[in-house]
Amino acid sequence: MQNKDKDTAIMLLHCPDKQGILAVVTEFINNNNGNIIYLDQYVDTVQGVFFMRVEWELDGFLIPKEKLSEYFQTLLAKPYDMVFNIYFHKQKPRMALFVSKQAHCLYDLLAHYEAGDWNVEIPLIVSNHPDLEHVAKKFGIPFFVFPINKDNKEEQEQKELDLLHENNVSCIVLARYMQIISPRMIAEYPEKIINIHHSFLPAFVGAKPYHAAYERGVKIIGATSHYVTEELDAGPIIEQDVVRISHKDTVGNLLRKGQDLEKIVLSRAVEKHIDRKILVYKNKTIVFD
Amino acid sequence: MQNKDKDTAIMLLHCPDKQGILAVVTEFINNNNGNIIYLDQYVDTVQGVFFMRVEWELDGFLIPKEKLSEYFQTLLAKPYDMVFNIYFHKQKPRMALFVSKQAHCLYDLLAHYEAGDWNVEIPLIVSNHPDLEHVAKKFGIPFFVFPINKDNKEEQEQKELDLLHENNVSCIVLARYMQIISPRMIAEYPEKIINIHHSFLPAFVGAKPYHAAYERGVKIIGATSHYVTEELDAGPIIEQDVVRISHKDTVGNLLRKGQDLEKIVLSRAVEKHIDRKILVYKNKTIVFD
Amino acid sequence: MQNKDKDTAIMLLHCPDKQGILAVVTEFINNNNGNIIYLDQYVDTVQGVFFMRVEWELDGFLIPKEKLSEYFQTLLAKPYDMVFNIYFHKQKPRMALFVSKQAHCLYDLLAHYEAGDWNVEIPLIVSNHPDLEHVAKKFGIPFFVFPINKDNKEEQEQKELDLLHENNVSCIVLARYMQIISPRMIAEYPEKIINIHHSFLPAFVGAKPYHAAYERGVKIIGATSHYVTEELDAGPIIEQDVVRISHKDTVGNLLRKGQDLEKIVLSRAVEKHIDRKILVYKNKTIVFD
Amino acid sequence: MQNKDKDTAIMLLHCPDKQGILAVVTEFINNNNGNIIYLDQYVDTVQGVFFMRVEWELDGFLIPKEKLSEYFQTLLAKPYDMVFNIYFHKQKPRMALFVSKQAHCLYDLLAHYEAGDWNVEIPLIVSNHPDLEHVAKKFGIPFFVFPINKDNKEEQEQKELDLLHENNVSCIVLARYMQIISPRMIAEYPEKIINIHHSFLPAFVGAKPYHAAYERGVKIIGATSHYVTEELDAGPIIEQDVVRISHKDTVGNLLRKGQDLEKIVLSRAVEKHIDRKILVYKNKTIVFD
Repeated sequence: MQNKDKDTAIMLLHCPDKQGILAVVTEFINNNNGNIIYLDQYVDTVQGVFFMRVEWELDGFLIPKEKLSEYFQTLLAKPYDMVFNIYFHKQKPRMALFVSKQAHCLYDLLAHYEAGDWNVEIPLIVSNHPDLEHVAKKFGIPFFVFPINKDNKEEQEQKELDLLHENNVSCIVLARYMQIISPRMIAEYPEKIINIHHSFLPAFVGAKPYHAAYERGVKIIGATSHYVTEELDAGPIIEQDVVRISHKDTVGNLLRKGQDLEKIVLSRAVEKHIDRKILVYKNKTIVFD
Repeated sequence: MQNKDKDTAIMLLHCPDKQGILAVVTEFINNNNGNIIYLDQYVDTVQGVFFMRVEWELDGFLIPKEKLSEYFQTLLAKPYDMVFNIYFHKQKPRMALFVSKQAHCLYDLLAHYEAGDWNVEIPLIVSNHPDLEHVAKKFGIPFFVFPINKDNKEEQEQKELDLLHENNVSCIVLARYMQIISPRMIAEYPEKIINIHHSFLPAFVGAKPYHAAYERGVKIIGATSHYVTEELDAGPIIEQDVVRISHKDTVGNLLRKGQDLEKIVLSRAVEKHIDRKILVYKNKTIVFD
Repeated sequence: MQNKDKDTAIMLLHCPDKQGILAVVTEFINNNNGNIIYLDQYVDTVQGVFFMRVEWELDGFLIPKEKLSEYFQTLLAKPYDMVFNIYFHKQKPRMALFVSKQAHCLYDLLAHYEAGDWNVEIPLIVSNHPDLEHVAKKFGIPFFVFPINKDNKEEQEQKELDLLHENNVSCIVLARYMQIISPRMIAEYPEKIINIHHSFLPAFVGAKPYHAAYERGVKIIGATSHYVTEELDAGPIIEQDVVRISHKDTVGNLLRKGQDLEKIVLSRAVEKHIDRKILVYKNKTIVFD
Repeated sequence: MQNKDKDTAIMLLHCPDKQGILAVVTEFINNNNGNIIYLDQYVDTVQGVFFMRVEWELDGFLIPKEKLSEYFQTLLAKPYDMVFNIYFHKQKPRMALFVSKQAHCLYDLLAHYEAGDWNVEIPLIVSNHPDLEHVAKKFGIPFFVFPINKDNKEEQEQKELDLLHENNVSCIVLARYMQIISPRMIAEYPEKIINIHHSFLPAFVGAKPYHAAYERGVKIIGATSHYVTEELDAGPIIEQDVVRISHKDTVGNLLRKGQDLEKIVLSRAVEKHIDRKILVYKNKTIVFD
């Protein structure tokens, strides 16, 4: 939407709800000569929390980019008890993709990436199997294989972390990566690891959800994208969608129908993350439009 | 669809799948001068089971209605190891509605009933609270209150059963009835008690599913209609549907949005049941179109 | 959500987008001691228009209710070129229902009304046929029949308007009313007449949309609720929803499946209207959450 | 589902509905030692037409493949006035993809193809622009550019037809191909050219449907896959799906959200076509499960 050449600041914040908070934030930006191009706020009246996403053009803004967080912290965040994050449009997220053997989510992400749909860089792809190297090659993205078994998991994850650090990776997408991420890696990437689970969570947590859905005889199946936390499949949900099935669908059909869901749901979640439109609060997401 | 004056026979059957089963059943009907007006069959190739629903006009059919089950049992069901049920269009299901305090499902069912949408009779409404008597009165349907508490549950259910027997009730719809049905009543009405659960089962089994959905931060809520079995909310699922929600929705909103789902999902399930289009096999439903 | 005893003011406004508009409006309310309990705004960056819905508690508010519009007009609306409407929570919309022969939407609306779901009064029901008088009677709502034919349309609509005026009706819901509303009545109730059209507009404008959908062989049918304007089925769309069908569905099935859609879609639109969450701009709606 | 090594025959047929048709067809197959692995039939009781899809294993079948059509024509089709098509599983459809500049549908189709999801061969890709050659190269599929303008359209289509003939192409998928197919090519591939139209047909026929949807202010957008006929966007609909939008969505957003729909809807239609599960009758489709 915006002029691609102009840089912008994007701020996500939450704080205890009080009268006039919206006004002080917008005045802070306006008074410092920032032109607001997006503003959305939401008040959780049950918990009394104010959430906000605001984006403004940095061209002519009085406070230098590198000082912005400090100034905001001093002038507003501290007095109003705000928790905030500031991102810059031109500082693109650097996203690593983790895959195993199935290509459908990977192709969907890379097709978006190649089409220039997203303000992101994908410096590398990690896998525990070599199967999808040909896909990475097609798109000219470095592909690294770290076979994982019970004995080498810690060691291999350390190598993965080293690789991520070297490449300044800021977030990770598990595009049907069939390994559980260890607490250590989660701790390094809190609310920065996006998973796609092939069920309508919290139904069918864990392995083989399509088999479980078939067994239970549900009439609708789903897919869920969420941030990874230590508890399996229990992190903040970003996006879900469903598709109708019937008694005629075998497990094989569920797998096929589910793949379409998985890729769509994952890509929507990734897009929201890249656009910095997701705020996590108490294991739930506020997803701005 | 069919001529309302003509009676029809509806047969639901399943048996081990073999070559030619469909042919022997259709020949049985054709040879005895029955005009087939509906036929649908489905083979579960995983389990090797053949399922079928067939409906034919009884006008001119050679076998008398009261002998039909016996003849079919002798000539086909026994040799082919079939399990079958025969219903007659003019022998309408007699359906009791069980309610508590919320009227939305009850109104939806009664509006369909009054409009003549369904081939059913509703001789009575049962409740554990007097609140909805005024609704029953509007439609001229007898309303019976059986307040239930820990101490009188068995005794009250016996009275309910007596009432159902006196009224030749053949099936029961729990239209947001907030009591657990005892095994004894379930045993008397196997696959004949339809419940609406206000979640996308198997997520959020049990009490307060909207609160649980709110806590978990799901992005879609659902409703599930199923036959009641002894295990809570674990019976064969008949119909499900969902609606998208967002972080802006309070529990109150979920309750409201959910009510629309509940009534639609329950009415769809009830319609399928009345039309004898549901076959239960190993705790799952085959729902014919 | 809010305390039912407290009155609130609800303002819907739009104006050319400028820096700081949000701030001046919130300051106006805050400075006059109003406690904002809802605020949502939206900027159409293509057209450069700012839209807002704000609600605040009137308890302790410095400007008297009856002076509020005047003050706001003078102090903000004029300088900022705003178009606005102010409503008060305790001043409930008075809604007339227009029906013909089908009861499904009427029952759905009245069930919501009776349950107290909506902050509305329904003083009367108008019909061109006597068929649904029994429904009105069930709910104790006066029912008026104005049979309409080519020759008496103008005269009958005049009587209807007189009746609406006598009853201080502020908005009209066409709950499957099968008559075209004349420009004159539309002019008296601009953006105050809600219709339900039984198709996914703009597909299948006009009569017999289910027949047209059947003929075209679509795989999904829909329903659309919109404000009535002079051009048939072309007014601002408030809400739409769809349901999947198949080649197996006869026109009769479409009618039945469609009825469930119609009632849900109409009730959602009516609820948004009652809650004053709809703003119309250039024949499109902004619908606040 | 089936044993990949075994060949099967797939028959699609329709005829005037009569008693016993299903039986004679199944007997024909059974008596000649064919093992039926799929059977679905549907009777359009309004038009009195019987539709059927049946698939059986050819291993041990008495009639040789090359004689099957002749025998069936003589023994059943003629006496029963049947219209039928027979396909063999091992004789894969040869599918040409036509594209222009947008890659999303192309990637989705090729990802399915590469994963081995479909029983199809894709010998070539045709385009009126060179833009997507890099995608074809990634998958090793020959790519042919035929730039089309007003003056050379006939000549270029002739070259395309020559190319299709040389490659024994049996069906064509227009994967966001932005040219109108001439009647001549349609006549050579009747019910064999699948298009994806980026609207919920019949709403928004023709160019720029997302712009039209935005202008009209709809709350849901759709995509439609259909067989191409001479009348623009009026051919038999195979599959449709929709996604909810709001007043916040710009035309750009609709384009993006629509792309996800387009690829899913097109891939579903292509899969049904490849599986020979679609029967066209009077400009409508019967789509078997």
